[in-house]
Amino acid sequence: MTEKVNKETLVKGAFLEGDPRGGAFRFVVEPFTEDYTGRLAWHFLGNHLLRCASLHAGLRGFGYEDMQKAHHAWVLSRLSVQLEEMPRTGEEYVIETWVARIYRQFTDRHYAITGADGRVYGYAASTWALIDVDTRLPMDLDTLPDGGFTDAVIDREAPIPGFARIRLTPQATVAKRHDVVYTDLDINGHVNSIRYIEMMLDLFPADRFAATPVRRLDVAYNAESHFGDSLELITDTARDGREQVEIRKAGGGPVVKAAIGFAS
Amino acid sequence: MTEKVNKETLVKGAFLEGDPRGGAFRFVVEPFTEDYTGRLAWHFLGNHLLRCASLHAGLRGFGYEDMQKAHHAWVLSRLSVQLEEMPRTGEEYVIETWVARIYRQFTDRHYAITGADGRVYGYAASTWALIDVDTRLPMDLDTLPDGGFTDAVIDREAPIPGFARIRLTPQATVAKRHDVVYTDLDINGHVNSIRYIEMMLDLFPADRFAATPVRRLDVAYNAESHFGDSLELITDTARDGREQVEIRKAGGGPVVKAAIGFAS
Repeated sequence: MTEKVNKETLVKGAFLEGDPRGGAFRFVVEPFTEDYTGRLAWHFLGNHLLRCASLHAGLRGFGYEDMQKAHHAWVLSRLSVQLEEMPRTGEEYVIETWVARIYRQFTDRHYAITGADGRVYGYAASTWALIDVDTRLPMDLDTLPDGGFTDAVIDREAPIPGFARIRLTPQATVAKRHDVVYTDLDINGHVNSIRYIEMMLDLFPADRFAATPVRRLDVAYNAESHFGDSLELITDTARDGREQVEIRKAGGGPVVKAAIGFAS
Repeated sequence: MTEKVNKETLVKGAFLEGDPRGGAFRFVVEPFTEDYTGRLAWHFLGNHLLRCASLHAGLRGFGYEDMQKAHHAWVLSRLSVQLEEMPRTGEEYVIETWVARIYRQFTDRHYAITGADGRVYGYAASTWALIDVDTRLPMDLDTLPDGGFTDAVIDREAPIPGFARIRLTPQATVAKRHDVVYTDLDINGHVNSIRYIEMMLDLFPADRFAATPVRRLDVAYNAESHFGDSLELITDTARDGREQVEIRKAGGGPVVKAAIGFAS
């Protein structure tokens, strides 16, 4: 017998109410994509958020391949995710994404993650820069020759607080060291953006994720890391209870900073 | 706009020629599922092999849920994968799987991994035991009340050499230690079978995977490991050039043994 593995069907964007400037992509939580609590693993949610950014940008004419022709590349600068809950095995979810803002060297892309029945799993907001791949300098998005990019902006925001500042105290300590390995790398040859999130979650005991799942994540991407790099994971707990983590190259500057908000 | 993420279509099993006792499942290599060389990552191929076993068994009436009712569970004992090549981003591949043999406490499930144009990516063979979840003892599959299980056997073998023996020399040394972390765990609460493969691949420099991709993998699963376990990864190189790895609980017995054959 022959079977389709993903039972994909077309859905209408729920949050955007079918606005053609946005994109809505349907997923099912497949077995073997969950964490040990039976909920979608961050690995998959995170990579699906990046994938939807790429799909939506490609459909609108400013995707990876379009940018490559102009020697430009999108670089993720910040990511905030706020969840009511993670979907469970077999549950369907729709990731809606749209360009919410363009300002000088940055653009904000927002997300809504909802269930088939209109249930809200959560929202996300991300900030991207467009760099010149030759000079590695960011482009001024306000003065770019416009190929429909500004037309894509939808004046709507994901209803979550803005990026939460991450400021480690001088008391922060090195909790772990990690030498970059083969499976950390993505097709760009650097450590995958979502892999850093996994490294940071892995600083905490597994049972904490069952008792108090992660509800909020703020990640700032400062620099790339590559095979051969030795990383230090430095942590402390903020006054408001959020766990702060900085990933630094040994003897070098910060690569990623994050704040993790476990349910209380 | 609203788009389907996976453009799934029904395909006919190529290798099994539509034999209804087998299963054929179609996948596409999605962006963000590759390794840094642009080929499907082992993480995804491995989990898709397990997923297809689960899907096929479920469709034939001896899947996870059917077994759970009888207080039985399938346990992976051995896995061999031999590849001509890994599919690249955007390429479609079909995983065909069937029960090739039943003998006492074990059953062999074989796989063919082919492209849409009939191209062979590779084959795999796996050995499973059915355990009683209360006693943890393996069942004798020859004497089980049969619910169509023996009817599923197809007298055909994946055309690859059998499981390759793994025998570390006394010179084998501890290459790395790994404390089990949250993202290692799957929904059963133990370290995911494919995660061990990633841990073992990560013992080798990234550039080796570009120059000489892994062509053959043999893995024997001896015991489970859980959060809190400290693992030792012990390695040596066999006379025939295969890299041998044993993962052992610190101060305990072997968990997984494997041999990795890089292209020469």
